[in-house]
Amino acid sequence: MPHTKNDKFRLGLVQTACAADPNQNLAKAVWKIREAASRGAQIVCLEELFRSEYFCREENADLFALAEPVPGPTTETLRALARELGVVIVASLFERRAAGLYHNTAAVIDADGALLGTYRKTHIPDDPCYYEKFYFTPGDLGFPSFETRYGRIAVLVCWDQWYPEAARLAALGGPTVLFYPTAIGWHQHEKEQHGAAQRDAWITIQRAHAIANGVYVAAVNRVGVERTLEFWGSSFVAGPFGEILAQASTDKEETLVVDCDPRQVEEVRRNWPFLRDRRIDAYGPILQRWGE
Amino acid sequence: MPHTKNDKFRLGLVQTACAADPNQNLAKAVWKIREAASRGAQIVCLEELFRSEYFCREENADLFALAEPVPGPTTETLRALARELGVVIVASLFERRAAGLYHNTAAVIDADGALLGTYRKTHIPDDPCYYEKFYFTPGDLGFPSFETRYGRIAVLVCWDQWYPEAARLAALGGPTVLFYPTAIGWHQHEKEQHGAAQRDAWITIQRAHAIANGVYVAAVNRVGVERTLEFWGSSFVAGPFGEILAQASTDKEETLVVDCDPRQVEEVRRNWPFLRDRRIDAYGPILQRWGE
Repeated sequence: MPHTKNDKFRLGLVQTACAADPNQNLAKAVWKIREAASRGAQIVCLEELFRSEYFCREENADLFALAEPVPGPTTETLRALARELGVVIVASLFERRAAGLYHNTAAVIDADGALLGTYRKTHIPDDPCYYEKFYFTPGDLGFPSFETRYGRIAVLVCWDQWYPEAARLAALGGPTVLFYPTAIGWHQHEKEQHGAAQRDAWITIQRAHAIANGVYVAAVNRVGVERTLEFWGSSFVAGPFGEILAQASTDKEETLVVDCDPRQVEEVRRNWPFLRDRRIDAYGPILQRWGE
Repeated sequence: MPHTKNDKFRLGLVQTACAADPNQNLAKAVWKIREAASRGAQIVCLEELFRSEYFCREENADLFALAEPVPGPTTETLRALARELGVVIVASLFERRAAGLYHNTAAVIDADGALLGTYRKTHIPDDPCYYEKFYFTPGDLGFPSFETRYGRIAVLVCWDQWYPEAARLAALGGPTVLFYPTAIGWHQHEKEQHGAAQRDAWITIQRAHAIANGVYVAAVNRVGVERTLEFWGSSFVAGPFGEILAQASTDKEETLVVDCDPRQVEEVRRNWPFLRDRRIDAYGPILQRWGE
């Protein structure tokens, strides 16, 4: 029977460490996607900027060479793989849009190999060792949803996860799942003092996006130590009432395979009808920078 | 030395069970506020609709008799108490604004007894045994902050706590603390199956408001069984990175007294500068009901 809108589907979250060589990372991603598909995953999401080490740890104009067009070589490889395996692939890429114009972009490839579209990271951080404002122009594609063969999904990227506005805007497009490809980690010098609280806040705010919007949230983070950054993994899927359905370790490569049921979204929203009561007439000042 | 803007201040959260007699509840509130003040509390918040049992469990027009003007008798009593003790009082009241026009309103009384202003609950629930849409017109006062003697605060009420928009809008007014007077509990028949997840979601989403906005969150809930509803208490204060600083039990009357430091808000926001990067140019569709 063909897959219908209310049928369950199976997510695959690929948590890996990245090597210096982009081709090695792509080969690993292909292998991991095959493995996830063999475990029944139908929508597979890779971590943020999976083709390289987290280059934003320094401001270095030579590193723009890591960027590529989208569509481009990586999406070509992944489109062929998606078609072969019959899986949807969500891939986070360093997009070269034009000379001097780059984005942190997620490509959504359907199970027939079609590039359904892209999302460009809306909120760009700039913190010590996360110098993303140097590399990425803030996204200008809004918060689209993508109707894939197996389910309707939206993608947000890393720093977006701290913004309830982004989750809400994506959720209003009707996805069953919000994906968050991510590259977040500890500064090794502050891990002991602040590490547990940082990771906990990161999980908590994303679980809250699931709760506020009655959607599944799938966060896909990298692991491994890259110079002074220790990426904390902990990739997870939360159900539409915020419950953790599966979670990976902080330090190992792992692929989570998790079922996702659109009927559960229906059920949770019937019992917790938050969308019914949004006061859109009262939210105007949310478009302001500050209250004064 | 007079209290200055950057000085710490001490919150008091009064978690009680309510009796059928409104005067008995007021007497208890006065006693509990005195007790909190004796423990050094400077801003004391009562639970939602503390003057009565949770009457919204049924739709009964006779119960509009519980309402009163604001300012009115209860604020008069609490203003005198605030002045006597030198404490700020946040009191949730059933406001009669005009014949046939009622609100679920929080009054903020400064430490000199002045009524600084009111907030009217923006999001009104309607669920089995929480028939609030029958009683309350949705609030029309926006999301104000109040500059009290000890600190700048904002108040949201119960169902508002499920809306990230409300927390953000209140936070943009610059408060150090968001208070949530609340009356939330378990339906006894579903407590065993869903109770833990419901309470956990309630805590999680409010901690997320603290994280997203870099503010303290103080939730003040009632306890006790009223017919088929079992209010789950669990009043708590979260710090500006979402960490739980104190939490009350699910079934006992308790007053939490918790220090709150505006410098901690400054510190957290310097390290997690979420407010810097809000994409107000991209948030327009948040004023829409749905994405299509």
